[in-house]
Parts: sequence; structure tokens; C-alpha cells
Amino acid sequence: MHKPTHGIVTAGLLVIGDEILSGRTKDKNIGFIAEYLTALGIDLKEVRVVPDEEDEIVTALNALRARYTYVFTTGGIGPTHDDITADSVAKAFGVPIGVDARVVEIFKTRAPAMELNEARLRMARIPQGAALVENKISAAPGFWLGNVIVMAGVPSIMQSMLDAVSGKLKAGAKMLAETVRADAREGDIGTPLAEIAKANPEVIIGSYPFFDGSGPNTNIVVRSRDAEKLAAVKSAVEDMLARVHDQVKR
Amino acid sequence: MHKPTHGIVTAGLLVIGDEILSGRTKDKNIGFIAEYLTALGIDLKEVRVVPDEEDEIVTALNALRARYTYVFTTGGIGPTHDDITADSVAKAFGVPIGVDARVVEIFKTRAPAMELNEARLRMARIPQGAALVENKISAAPGFWLGNVIVMAGVPSIMQSMLDAVSGKLKAGAKMLAETVRADAREGDIGTPLAEIAKANPEVIIGSYPFFDGSGPNTNIVVRSRDAEKLAAVKSAVEDMLARVHDQVKR
Repeated sequence: MHKPTHGIVTAGLLVIGDEILSGRTKDKNIGFIAEYLTALGIDLKEVRVVPDEEDEIVTALNALRARYTYVFTTGGIGPTHDDITADSVAKAFGVPIGVDARVVEIFKTRAPAMELNEARLRMARIPQGAALVENKISAAPGFWLGNVIVMAGVPSIMQSMLDAVSGKLKAGAKMLAETVRADAREGDIGTPLAEIAKANPEVIIGSYPFFDGSGPNTNIVVRSRDAEKLAAVKSAVEDMLARVHDQVKR
Repeated sequence: MHKPTHGIVTAGLLVIGDEILSGRTKDKNIGFIAEYLTALGIDLKEVRVVPDEEDEIVTALNALRARYTYVFTTGGIGPTHDDITADSVAKAFGVPIGVDARVVEIFKTRAPAMELNEARLRMARIPQGAALVENKISAAPGFWLGNVIVMAGVPSIMQSMLDAVSGKLKAGAKMLAETVRADAREGDIGTPLAEIAKANPEVIIGSYPFFDGSGPNTNIVVRSRDAEKLAAVKSAVEDMLARVHDQVKR
């Protein structure tokens, strides 16, 4: 399904919407997209959330699209006056935008009874040169221009659009991950864990504290694109934990 | 409790952590902080999520602290090698950082049995000139330097730190909001809603589609710092909706 490529494939995510910044709507897309891209072997490197303001969208989009293989956006492609993503993307790329005959055709086919009023035609505004991204849920499509993929903000629709483009994305070598439950406090393993991390610069070691039923505990997550290196570092972490548990017992 | 100020008080939020970008941990702090700041009359204007990499943290922090009244950060202040927020903040401000005697004292008082090993002393590293932010949950404090407030990533601890600083934040004139359930599809109200928005540039009108039990519906959220203008626009929206419902019935 995916075209494997050598090297690293990266992504940025731009979440567009006053409602996320006011706290009225709790974002559910960042975590979903992060997990989805990780599974494809694409490294999500940065997320920005900006308001429904053209300058903010254009500036953030231009910063992200210059840095990453792909930029995904969510939000702001509906039929109301606060939906300014398509126009902002056109401005960022310096291309014209207008009502796209392909979208009008989709509306007529998928929803023949729907009145194509001014508001709904707003959803047919697509920057010149963009490919459409299918929306299986509610017809109005997203689009793909350059390295930017523009999706809806409603999670079910966003997810359907992500599925629609996923087969066309370049995939990197997949990041492998192993989680080791430490059964120890972060502060008791931080020093030896730092030694393992220092000795293995090509393997990423994350340490994530959590509260289990009885007190503070830690998950150690080891990540690498190389299965052998991953296994070696996982073993080193397990050996270290055995030593720490042994010391605590004595 | 808050010092009301004239004018607008803004904030940026910097979420630090590979685990959010990999999707392993689903962020719960953005929505909480957004709602919390809105309730204080502080406008959250931008969020960025960056990995545990010093250059990325320093660049994002310097961009945000130059633009907004306050910058809040979450994550990266624990005892392990991947906790590099304090050092990155010191670097961004160009100030020295070292083990802070105030934090050592807190550890000794709050957890006298806890071994102050190298890893735990990492949590005592505080940039010069910073005020401490109390952590009621697990002792290791956050800090406040310039306009930057550095908090833990674990939600319960972050929330306790936010409570600890909230009384000291400048508060803006509070943004008021009213939600009107449209009982109509976005596409059927977009055109008249845009007219209301255009006639009332000082009032922010957001339109948020959702699926209710029977199909697509819309919430219209009207926001303003001026109660009278808010009420007038809310009425205009309700009148518009009555006309739309009347047309649909006929």
C-alpha cells in the first residue's frame, strides 16, 4: 500500500480554529493523527494550533510547509464565514481560488436535493492546482496542494479524509517501539537510564511517569528504526531495572 | 483574586514531548488550559507542540514569548535524561542554570526519606532569577521566569501548578460567550449568518457543525467582551434562525 522510501519522512500538523483555543471544543484530532502517522512510518515533528485569522494561518502554514515533507491541516473548510482555510492556503501558495466545477459535480451527484446556495458554494472553493480529497461522510471534499493536505475538523470526516490520502503518502522506515514498565519511580532510575541513553545515541529512550494503584511508577519507551539496536537497548533497560529492584529490596 | 487590566491579555502554550507527537500519550492539557485561561479572561492565541529537542524548544519559546503576554509550557521537567525543558528555558533567556537551594529544601522537607540522587537533583535545576511554582502533588516545583510559566506534563500536577499561579496573572476583560443551537444545517444558515457577522465586526461568531441523533446540526457561538453587543447579536441570530425554520417548513 505505501511506497517505502529511504530516509525520514516528516510531517507538521496545523489545527485551525478559535473553538480549540477557547477550550469550547476539545481537540481529538492531534492524538489520532499522531498515532496514524507513526503507524505509517511518518514522523510528526510539530503541531501548531492557530485561530481563524488569515495572517496566522498563512504564516504558520508557510513555516511548516518549508520544514516538513507533509503538512496536514484540520478545520475551517465548512460553509460559514469563519471557514477561511481554503482562501488562506491559496494565499500562502500565491495561487488563485474559485468555485471548483469538480466539487459542484460531487454535490449534484451526492446530494441532488441540496440547494447550492452561496454558503454551500463556499465549500466548493478550491485553490487552483489542488487535487481533491474524498469525504465519504458528508460530500464536501478536502484538498491536497503541493505538500499540504487540507482536511475537515470534525473527527469522523477528518479520519475518512486521512484514509483517502494514506495510500498516496511516501512512507519512511517505520519507527519501532517497545514499552517497559519499570515498577520504579523515575527518580530512582533516572541516573542509570541516562547512562544507557548516552551510550546509545541512535535509540530514543523516553521516560513517562504515571500513578499506578499504589504510587508513582514509570513507563520506559525505547524507539528505533533498527530492530537489533532496539532489542539491545530494551535488554539493557531490563538489566538495569533488575539491578535497581535488587538494591531496593536489600 | 485577579488584577483586572484594561486591554487584552494573551497567552501562548508550548507543549513539550516526543510522546505527544508519536501519539503514545494523548494530550489532555491543551483543552484544560484553554478553558482555564478563557475563564480568567486571558486569550489563548496559539499552541505549539514540539519534541524533546533543545533547538526546537528554544526556537518555539522565543517566538511565543515575544508575541504574547504569557507563555505556559507543559512537560519535560522530570528527573530523566529526556527532561530538558529547564535547561532549554535557561538557554532561551540566556541565563545560567544550576541546582537551586530552595528546591533542595523543599525535597528535604516534603520527602525526607527520598534519596537526593543525581536524577532527582535534575528536578532541582532552575534557571537563575526564576520564581518557583508550587507542586502540591509531588513536590518538584515548576517555575516562572519573565513571562514564561513552566509546568509539569502530568495533568494532575499541571493543574495544581496552574492553580498556584492563577491568582498572580493579569486578567483581561473577560470574553463572554453565548451558544445558540441552530437546529439547522450549516449550509442552510451560512449566508445569513455571514451577513450578521459582517454587520458586527466587534463580535466573534463561530459556527460549529455536529451530528445530533437525527442528522447534521449546528451550534452558533457568539463571543464578545461587551455584554450589550453580545445580547444584540444573539437576538439577531435567533431572529435569523426563526426565518430559516419558517422557510424550511413552507
